[in-house]
Amino acid sequence: MDIPKENFSDWYNTIIQDAKLCDLRYNLKGFIVIMPNAADVISRMYRIYEDALEARGHRKAYFPALISEKNLQVEKEHVEGFAPEVFWVTEAGNNKLEEKMLMRPTSETAMYPLYALWINGKSDLPLKIYQSCQVWRYETKATKPFIRSREFYWIEAHDVFATEKEALAQVQEDMEMTEEIIHNSFGVPFIFFRRPQWDKFAGAVDTYAADTLLPDGKTLQLPSTHMLGTNFAKPFGVKYMDEDGQEKLCHQTCYGPAISRIYSAIVATHGDNKGVILPFHLANTQIVIVPIVKKENAEKVLSFAREIEKKLSKKFRVKMDASENTPGFKYNYWEMHGTPLRIEIGERDIDSGKAVVVRRDTRAKEQVPFDKLSSRIEEIGDEFNKSLIEKADKWFSSLQKEAESMDELSKALEKGGGFVRVPFCSDQMEGKECAEKVKEACGGNMRGSLYGAKEKPKGKKCIACGREAHIYLYAARQY
Amino acid sequence: MDIPKENFSDWYNTIIQDAKLCDLRYNLKGFIVIMPNAADVISRMYRIYEDALEARGHRKAYFPALISEKNLQVEKEHVEGFAPEVFWVTEAGNNKLEEKMLMRPTSETAMYPLYALWINGKSDLPLKIYQSCQVWRYETKATKPFIRSREFYWIEAHDVFATEKEALAQVQEDMEMTEEIIHNSFGVPFIFFRRPQWDKFAGAVDTYAADTLLPDGKTLQLPSTHMLGTNFAKPFGVKYMDEDGQEKLCHQTCYGPAISRIYSAIVATHGDNKGVILPFHLANTQIVIVPIVKKENAEKVLSFAREIEKKLSKKFRVKMDASENTPGFKYNYWEMHGTPLRIEIGERDIDSGKAVVVRRDTRAKEQVPFDKLSSRIEEIGDEFNKSLIEKADKWFSSLQKEAESMDELSKALEKGGGFVRVPFCSDQMEGKECAEKVKEACGGNMRGSLYGAKEKPKGKKCIACGREAHIYLYAARQY
Repeated sequence: MDIPKENFSDWYNTIIQDAKLCDLRYNLKGFIVIMPNAADVISRMYRIYEDALEARGHRKAYFPALISEKNLQVEKEHVEGFAPEVFWVTEAGNNKLEEKMLMRPTSETAMYPLYALWINGKSDLPLKIYQSCQVWRYETKATKPFIRSREFYWIEAHDVFATEKEALAQVQEDMEMTEEIIHNSFGVPFIFFRRPQWDKFAGAVDTYAADTLLPDGKTLQLPSTHMLGTNFAKPFGVKYMDEDGQEKLCHQTCYGPAISRIYSAIVATHGDNKGVILPFHLANTQIVIVPIVKKENAEKVLSFAREIEKKLSKKFRVKMDASENTPGFKYNYWEMHGTPLRIEIGERDIDSGKAVVVRRDTRAKEQVPFDKLSSRIEEIGDEFNKSLIEKADKWFSSLQKEAESMDELSKALEKGGGFVRVPFCSDQMEGKECAEKVKEACGGNMRGSLYGAKEKPKGKKCIACGREAHIYLYAARQY
Repeated sequence: MDIPKENFSDWYNTIIQDAKLCDLRYNLKGFIVIMPNAADVISRMYRIYEDALEARGHRKAYFPALISEKNLQVEKEHVEGFAPEVFWVTEAGNNKLEEKMLMRPTSETAMYPLYALWINGKSDLPLKIYQSCQVWRYETKATKPFIRSREFYWIEAHDVFATEKEALAQVQEDMEMTEEIIHNSFGVPFIFFRRPQWDKFAGAVDTYAADTLLPDGKTLQLPSTHMLGTNFAKPFGVKYMDEDGQEKLCHQTCYGPAISRIYSAIVATHGDNKGVILPFHLANTQIVIVPIVKKENAEKVLSFAREIEKKLSKKFRVKMDASENTPGFKYNYWEMHGTPLRIEIGERDIDSGKAVVVRRDTRAKEQVPFDKLSSRIEEIGDEFNKSLIEKADKWFSSLQKEAESMDELSKALEKGGGFVRVPFCSDQMEGKECAEKVKEACGGNMRGSLYGAKEKPKGKKCIACGREAHIYLYAARQY
């Protein structure tokens, strides 16, 4: 690892291989093998997300990975959006299938026909169901490991309500959950936007999305919630019998955190020139013990270190590195892999009754009495997470900018990227042409307005067309 | 639910729908939707299995669901075994693909080319990796929900060793883990067999498999471990450089618990005429509180019951059923869904200071003082699990039989099924013809010899050919 993080793209491409996060040599284009060092963390992220969904009344289901072609055809905009990027199964064994099947790119068309059967009266609502699964999309854009692949790992929650109001409250709940998990737990800052009409999910009324920034100042979309209104309920027949005896259409939302992509944001946000840095609770090995031995004290030091390992293992995921390598080699190795804490134990430490605890992020050293080790490490773990978040927030804030002309926007994006707030004519379809102008002029992509924003431009002009500005939108270069 | 368990097939087909375990109306043949009541449990089973694998040194990975056609072609027997049952992806978007891809029916051919790259020296061994995923097989046999589908949910662990001895030790470890999880935790009895040579996994040296019995006395295969020897290592180039400077082939095993199928065995083993019965730690709702209210004491009883719910929720997954339904309706509902314990709380109970705790399996009632409820329930949970296992073991033992002629075997299978030990000429390929004779004569399938068995027939004759018997094999009718 000798590429500085300033050269983000090269740094990222190097770290994912040097830290053995994935293997790019799988022989299908756009598909990667997620190796144990990343899979451990992704698995832990899944459990955190699933627990949060369950705590909010969602229940798990497993829907098939294959979908009949006729299901895809039901909602017109949806089919237009997804048909160009699906993988088709046309044969099985030695038979040509009578009807083609697609591998799910997302599961609306698999789930909603069943929802129509499951929902009768109001007592069946709200229905809040999620699944943790892989999805497949035939990406024609350049792929980048974890960030954009033809196969990715996500959760999709599909919720159904009697009223629009409840559906909108779900958007709010999803946003809060995203904040709780992605920011407060994973330490990745983001802004929750309402997308412009020209950039919403195929078939949705509105799309809300959490966008983060990668170190090069370009934005990456994290989870999104789609307000589907009754757009899918109508063609799929998702209805309920109201108390007034009338059959009414349900209001739906869907929420999709792409766990493998969120993982890339964790690696990108916290990592440094030495390698990966992971929040304390996400790391597979939270603590590595490096015994400092000489020939004459090897037995004493190793057996003492093993005792410490055993004690700490009751509370933490601990490894002792008793390999033949030099301490320096071990330090580099475990720093590269993102282990949050290192404990060095030599004879001097044993005699003094204190271990040296070294933080991965700041490399700060602290002497901790052996009998306080477990409780102090718990505190250090919290401090570690807290300072990761603070550091990320500070950096993220520094990339919030404002501009009032195309020229200012262009300069802001040129100089470090980030989110640039600009006055804009409209986020409805009539603004689409202006968005295209921005894209052409400076590569900026209109990410939308702040979720729940009340701020409105007064006496400002749209940076693209010069007409009166009615809304603030945020521009960024995107992945 | 008014079909007795004696009519197992009808009972099973009814319970999976009445208890909302799955929906069979998904519009692709052989694919089912796993509903929350089952998905909750399956998800919990996954976590238990993953933790057990990790504790034994396995690490998780995620390999792609799609595999290049040329990978499948590498091992001759494997391709013959699997080619007739794979789903082929031949198109993507509007393009015809230059090379077909298959949806993984199992992942040897996805994983081992990478293993060849990952393993260099002895220090890379053993390599023990698993993934939790869906697999797809174009079954032409009749499908049965959870038991045999075109899509199922499993874990596959693929382990690599320097020596055959270590690989055989892994078979033993897998067997012990199977015992720990499937028997001791899920309460499903099984026998671990070494399959006859004619019935092993395509490409394996030997297949070892855990077979259980369903209530109709027919056997169902649960996890199997395949001793692959060097059969895959050779064509895929999975080698290591030994200390003597020689390149040597690795020895491999793979282990595949089909979680969705194991789930069916749990339902089938423990359920009764009233519905599902689940082990205490697997149930999504472990305890249901049913308040017994009259108009005049509703507020008092409900607020007391809510306090109890809150207290118990710290340790258990608890639901209070405060719906408008009658107590009788509620009892039936929660019994159908397999909730292990019911707590009834009425005014009289509040006044007497004791709750009535009712067990789902025996329907035994016990009065427990409110201040002892939490600790006593923990004990009852253990007793509950213990007696589920004892009951299952007793039933399973009653289906272990012996026969010394085709006629005896036929009668034993006719009368309740089960495993019937018979003297047999050979479990090598020369015995295959005899196995076919048995199949034809009485529908019995030769499941193999007991794992690690030393018992040998003396002076007995093969039940099929009458030649000298060299081995005891077990026959059963199978799913």
